[in-house]
Amino acid sequence: MSDLTLAAVSAKKASHLMAVLGSDCKNNALAAISKALLDSSEMIFKANNEDLKKAEEEDLETPLLKRLRFDSKKLKEVTDGIESLITLDDPVGKKLLHTTLDDGLDLYRVTCPIGVIGVIFESRPDALVQIASLCLKSGNSVFLKGGREAENTNRVLADIIYKAGVAAGLPEGWLHLITTREDVNAMLALDKYVDLIIPRGSNAFVQYIMKNTLIPVMGHADGVCHTYIASDCDHKKALKVVLDAKTQYVSVCNATETILVDRDLKDTLLPELISTLRDNNVEVFGDDEVSGLFNCEKAEQWHHEYLDYKVSVKLVDGISEAVDHINTYGSGHTDAIITEDKEKAEAFMDSVDSGSVLWNCSTRFADGFRYGFGAEVGISTSKLHARGPVGLEGLVSYKYKLYGNGDIVGDYASGNKKFKHIRRNI
Amino acid sequence: MSDLTLAAVSAKKASHLMAVLGSDCKNNALAAISKALLDSSEMIFKANNEDLKKAEEEDLETPLLKRLRFDSKKLKEVTDGIESLITLDDPVGKKLLHTTLDDGLDLYRVTCPIGVIGVIFESRPDALVQIASLCLKSGNSVFLKGGREAENTNRVLADIIYKAGVAAGLPEGWLHLITTREDVNAMLALDKYVDLIIPRGSNAFVQYIMKNTLIPVMGHADGVCHTYIASDCDHKKALKVVLDAKTQYVSVCNATETILVDRDLKDTLLPELISTLRDNNVEVFGDDEVSGLFNCEKAEQWHHEYLDYKVSVKLVDGISEAVDHINTYGSGHTDAIITEDKEKAEAFMDSVDSGSVLWNCSTRFADGFRYGFGAEVGISTSKLHARGPVGLEGLVSYKYKLYGNGDIVGDYASGNKKFKHIRRNI
Repeated sequence: MSDLTLAAVSAKKASHLMAVLGSDCKNNALAAISKALLDSSEMIFKANNEDLKKAEEEDLETPLLKRLRFDSKKLKEVTDGIESLITLDDPVGKKLLHTTLDDGLDLYRVTCPIGVIGVIFESRPDALVQIASLCLKSGNSVFLKGGREAENTNRVLADIIYKAGVAAGLPEGWLHLITTREDVNAMLALDKYVDLIIPRGSNAFVQYIMKNTLIPVMGHADGVCHTYIASDCDHKKALKVVLDAKTQYVSVCNATETILVDRDLKDTLLPELISTLRDNNVEVFGDDEVSGLFNCEKAEQWHHEYLDYKVSVKLVDGISEAVDHINTYGSGHTDAIITEDKEKAEAFMDSVDSGSVLWNCSTRFADGFRYGFGAEVGISTSKLHARGPVGLEGLVSYKYKLYGNGDIVGDYASGNKKFKHIRRNI
Repeated sequence: MSDLTLAAVSAKKASHLMAVLGSDCKNNALAAISKALLDSSEMIFKANNEDLKKAEEEDLETPLLKRLRFDSKKLKEVTDGIESLITLDDPVGKKLLHTTLDDGLDLYRVTCPIGVIGVIFESRPDALVQIASLCLKSGNSVFLKGGREAENTNRVLADIIYKAGVAAGLPEGWLHLITTREDVNAMLALDKYVDLIIPRGSNAFVQYIMKNTLIPVMGHADGVCHTYIASDCDHKKALKVVLDAKTQYVSVCNATETILVDRDLKDTLLPELISTLRDNNVEVFGDDEVSGLFNCEKAEQWHHEYLDYKVSVKLVDGISEAVDHINTYGSGHTDAIITEDKEKAEAFMDSVDSGSVLWNCSTRFADGFRYGFGAEVGISTSKLHARGPVGLEGLVSYKYKLYGNGDIVGDYASGNKKFKHIRRNI
């Protein structure tokens, strides 16, 4: 067996022990990890400085350097995050259903961990801490693979977290750091041991992972998010929300990439919208009509994620064309409507097939922290298992527990007994 | 575009309309379909007779012929099934979460259909009716591919169901029957339109599907189910339950394939168990010790699904070895413990990593109908999305709906506003 396979065997074995840990044990381990991180801050910052120095030598772009930096402010953020995770309910062992099948034959649906989760993430050391603590709280073993640029920081963080966890009672093998692309590829073949892969990164990267593994993948394809401004919108509200949705942080998946404007607003709101966008350094790409009216370039394709101060603008004939456009060219991530008509808003939110559908607010709200999930392990554009921002609840599965007293199916097949199927409150 | 791609486009388009149908409309369509099936019974039986005649000519085995037959009894069963489906709650539009993020900014998690589901199933015409009606009730469009032997029956059934549905208000394109293996392969490439594939069939078949598509697959690998008889069991109960678990219906995935017997029972229950099994025509394959003691063949491998009057028997040293054996050699389907010790039962049910874990009852209970789900579309051994018997709830996803009034993320980033995250009762 390769070292990685041995690691996977130990992670699987650990996962069966993680599954039966009590909430207190998991919370104590989280507290111990938080303390260990604070106690080892010098060592962490030293490793991070090595990574930063190397990254600067390699001329890494400023936003990437900012993500790579792990200083006392970031350390406080992640340890605060761990403290708040401790206060959240244990996602494991929740009863979701109770049905009395017959006298003395009771069925429960109860949440349980998924098992072994492999997470591949960008060069952000704070993400390592978040992901490890989310997996711990949800009772899963975890394989972590961070970006190459953060290699030293990740190694130190993973070592501190793993050892503090084991000292606090977690089973050996509960966390593994992998560091090479070869190990990622090898992990994709370990469908016998790894239950879920969560890749964070570009659309091309997520597609690559999906094409190369039998393990279920939870990831987001891309974020082609829309804001549709309906004819009966409040103009001031529309401009404010759209500007935030486009410019509050342009390089993220929940930023608006296409603005759909009702044709009735062509001579009123539209000119104001275009000038507001331009005043805020946003380059506008229009459909034929918009580009003719406002002397801007044509949008070449509608399924396009700029991640930049750029936006597509298209005129549509009412809600029906807006919904069709989004369901055709969107990515099922996050889409908003601006309208004063509640019925129209509800129709839009029911018909648009996306993880998050919003009324009169910015697409930038679609995020695990803002949604109140504590933290998020990613945003899923899949419709299976977990959709939208994924917090602790997306990291658990469930099992059915059936309690009997010598019951056999033969009695029901013969007609001797009949099922009662009484649904109980939980 | 190929005919199949055109069909997929129409199914996707229909799925957006299916998603917003009211419960009454869906229930009316179900009632109309039930009536149309009863009204067209002669045509259905005629088509089924053609299939049966052909199958007899091809020397199809008796159990398969039995599954293929669609007579007045089967028709009554499926229309009764539709009637009971009508009485079940609509799985779409259920609020799962309500959080007030801030004053006037309310988040809901609401169930919605998955979209377009492709189901590939065995030569059982009644399965076609069940699957179509489950997909309708859950608001999904559906591609159906039944076994080749049932081709004529399936064509007639699908035609009746589709037309009655459309006449009752369902959108065109909501149901498609596909008939060739080539079309199945072509469907696997349509990940742009098809949201979920549910393959029913052999392990090899499910693996083939998984390896050849980017579409999420919900299926069961195989059913290597165990019954563990603990030292403190009630002997009479143990024998009764194990016999049912093994012999009540041998060719199904929830039949017990391996019996684990506590070593303490070697001289007491074990001889009685072996003779009971043999009295019921069950051939025993033992571990070294059992085969030596009872003059039976050795079990060659422990991950083995007989689907026959055959069973593996192994002695284990207590619950810990039993759990390890199941988690190593089982298939995560259904496993039972027979014991009078509640604490031991709970430990077993928490530690065994399977979709269904049972105490003092037969593994044969793990089934959507017996669990009270109305009907099942399959049993999932995956831990993602739906696990165990899958009814209506496994055919829906959810979306987040956020209701605001001009809210922007900038206000929270700047510190002007703070999230309140008040969890509301639903």
